[in-house]
Amino acid sequence: MSTIVEILIQTFGKECVRTRDEASVRVASNWRQTEHLNCLALLRPKTTEEVSKILRICNEFNQPVVPHGGLTNVVGGVVTKPDEIALSLERMNGIEEISVQNKTATVQAGVILQNLQTVLAENGQHFPLDLGAKGSCMIGGNIASNAGGLQALRYGVMRNLVLGVEVVLADGTIISSLNKMVKNNAGYDLKQLFIGSEGTLGIITRAVLKIDDLPKSKNTAFVAVESFEKANLLLQVAKKQLKNDLTTFELLWQDYYRLMTSPPSPYSPPLPQTYPFYVLMEALGQDADKDKILFDELLENWLQDGLIADAVIAQSQQELEKVWGIRENVDLIFSVHSPVFLFDVSLAISDMDDYIKKIRSDLQQVWPSLHFYAFGHMGDGNLHLFINCGTNDEETKHLVDAIVYQPLQQISGSITGEHGVGLEKKSWLYLTRTTEEIELMKTLKKALDPKGILNPGKLLPD
Amino acid sequence: MSTIVEILIQTFGKECVRTRDEASVRVASNWRQTEHLNCLALLRPKTTEEVSKILRICNEFNQPVVPHGGLTNVVGGVVTKPDEIALSLERMNGIEEISVQNKTATVQAGVILQNLQTVLAENGQHFPLDLGAKGSCMIGGNIASNAGGLQALRYGVMRNLVLGVEVVLADGTIISSLNKMVKNNAGYDLKQLFIGSEGTLGIITRAVLKIDDLPKSKNTAFVAVESFEKANLLLQVAKKQLKNDLTTFELLWQDYYRLMTSPPSPYSPPLPQTYPFYVLMEALGQDADKDKILFDELLENWLQDGLIADAVIAQSQQELEKVWGIRENVDLIFSVHSPVFLFDVSLAISDMDDYIKKIRSDLQQVWPSLHFYAFGHMGDGNLHLFINCGTNDEETKHLVDAIVYQPLQQISGSITGEHGVGLEKKSWLYLTRTTEEIELMKTLKKALDPKGILNPGKLLPD
Repeated sequence: MSTIVEILIQTFGKECVRTRDEASVRVASNWRQTEHLNCLALLRPKTTEEVSKILRICNEFNQPVVPHGGLTNVVGGVVTKPDEIALSLERMNGIEEISVQNKTATVQAGVILQNLQTVLAENGQHFPLDLGAKGSCMIGGNIASNAGGLQALRYGVMRNLVLGVEVVLADGTIISSLNKMVKNNAGYDLKQLFIGSEGTLGIITRAVLKIDDLPKSKNTAFVAVESFEKANLLLQVAKKQLKNDLTTFELLWQDYYRLMTSPPSPYSPPLPQTYPFYVLMEALGQDADKDKILFDELLENWLQDGLIADAVIAQSQQELEKVWGIRENVDLIFSVHSPVFLFDVSLAISDMDDYIKKIRSDLQQVWPSLHFYAFGHMGDGNLHLFINCGTNDEETKHLVDAIVYQPLQQISGSITGEHGVGLEKKSWLYLTRTTEEIELMKTLKKALDPKGILNPGKLLPD
Repeated sequence: MSTIVEILIQTFGKECVRTRDEASVRVASNWRQTEHLNCLALLRPKTTEEVSKILRICNEFNQPVVPHGGLTNVVGGVVTKPDEIALSLERMNGIEEISVQNKTATVQAGVILQNLQTVLAENGQHFPLDLGAKGSCMIGGNIASNAGGLQALRYGVMRNLVLGVEVVLADGTIISSLNKMVKNNAGYDLKQLFIGSEGTLGIITRAVLKIDDLPKSKNTAFVAVESFEKANLLLQVAKKQLKNDLTTFELLWQDYYRLMTSPPSPYSPPLPQTYPFYVLMEALGQDADKDKILFDELLENWLQDGLIADAVIAQSQQELEKVWGIRENVDLIFSVHSPVFLFDVSLAISDMDDYIKKIRSDLQQVWPSLHFYAFGHMGDGNLHLFINCGTNDEETKHLVDAIVYQPLQQISGSITGEHGVGLEKKSWLYLTRTTEEIELMKTLKKALDPKGILNPGKLLPD
């Protein structure tokens, strides 16, 4: 047993400090990973003061620390090396304050997203971050990775939902920046530094989040459109006519829809499989009767105008689960294909159609029996791709990465819209960010974490 | 003539470099200031490369540089000392690209806000930052000060409207971070550092801004309410019923309304002067007919329900100008009272009423013949106060500051919602930010501008 682990056990006790062997019962430090955790120790502090003390000790010992939330990261952002300490926020899971009047919730970083949503719903309130991993991802991780998800079209990404944070710096300094105001220009907006920095600049321990009234209506439609242009026109029209009730606008390319509505998928196709594009759209509102009338009326108009080719409106919980399942149940891809590479690109809506055509074609030239699935948050300019080309060795992965990422440089797209960089994308960061930007990121890292103990090797290129 | 000015003239020519005497014809480097500019030289670069070269030279010479936009700052943020160089972005005023499809505008930092609005309107587009100074303030300054204004309720503050920036660092490094995507998690979001940093971390030279379709309807009402609680209830109800068409919700306390609707003001009172509170509300929409019908109907309902006590709907351009004049024409205060102190506090809506009562009362105890006017962006939790207590000597100013600012500490408010810190508020920053936060700000300043040449003495406490 190494000296630092002994010191940590002496200082924080066995409930907080799990040794390498004890920690190794835990599976995964990455989405869909089945490996066991391999780290020097797993720390589970209960308070911000404990996080502060831990980091002070680790900083003294030049001991790398990898912050852990719900372990739903998909880019290797929470992977530990054997000599690194994992610091989990799982025991800091208190919802400390909900202000219905001022529309804020103050929570510890280890609160699971869905738990927060449930408690808020009991108070008639709504936290609008929504993503597939909500049952296990934690608020601290959502902030550190600037999560996006299914309602960003209306509410923005996590950055737009955070009013204040409490963060512990590498040297143990506690930055209490728990602002609750919508507008505050009193000096630098420090929270912005930590949002989306993937645990490399500080460990988030608490946050003040913006909340909203719980919606009183939910109207959901699954529609087919005859072209990408019509999908885009529908998005523009729906935004105007539904105003900010339009919460979700998810585009599905035909291949993905067919996969999700053919055996072994449990979902039968709600619409014929012959259309080139499908859209899942949802509006959340405050007036159950009026909202439903308007939604149905708009769908009817769009059908008559030929803006949409076909449509189903979810009329029951079962139908709702089905259309959402078709969009969300990506595990099905893995039951049909293996291995699968996952991508998360961001680009102008006007570039999307051509981009997908180009990379599908480029990939098919190399792997004629390719499986290629595209869908995503069209309204946010953010698409996910699932690609199967038979193997997943290093060389194949690099070639697929190159084909997917390189065209983004010319169209000023991004190698990641919401998943972040982690380990997997850092060597491609130069496609999306300039040399000077990356140097400035390194300057910030050095200023805040001079010894480089926080999540080393993640996000920043070597 | 000092060596550095000679070098600058040799390098950039007389069109770019104005000497101290030449620069002194320029009036003001602060709102309502009538002093002449007093600086070592005034530089007016035409390109980002010139800004870069200038900063490289100044950094070598340890030469302080104060960035200048439209000089509408109200907190001393652009004041120069005699040995400082003013760097004006006024000649970098190009609107470089408007993408109607992708809803972005790429502009140079010296573009005047109103000019951008005009050009966008010609293209059916809308940039929703709106503030009194729009005829002279520049986009670069709007970003550096994270401007708020009259439509932040709907569109957010400048931080929410900026997608990308180009910035020159103190050593001349050009950071080209002209992102056009809504979602981009490829590394640290560097633009956030510079937004609201008041020119202390870098000089903004270009920006990518979010734009929106030009509204097709504008409905504006001036209403009276019988209590603060009713004003707040109205805000909540209006947000739900008008959805995100509700763009402006400005609260006026009675004293301010009386001042603005009594001689020598040119405005006659559109509503009796006897109500405790008045609200200017405006909705911008996309359907002229429907929007007007809904707006009128809602007003009628609110009157019948007793939510509002009285109302006028602006039916002509003249009436529109009048109700907006009553809210916006603050110059009238200065024609009646002198000297006047201006404040810009941020706090929870639930604290507003008590806070205003308390500080009015505290001020009146010291200055029984006080004039005290309060109004502001209620929906954003941001109020402006205009206070006249007879004199404006240092001691009086300090005492008024203390009475206005100190109660904010206990209610976790902020000494500035949108105006920023500049010179005027830096000694009060500790009320709103912790010691550790201020130290972290200084760490960032040192990392980005080690010699401290950029806008020295502003924002950060000594």
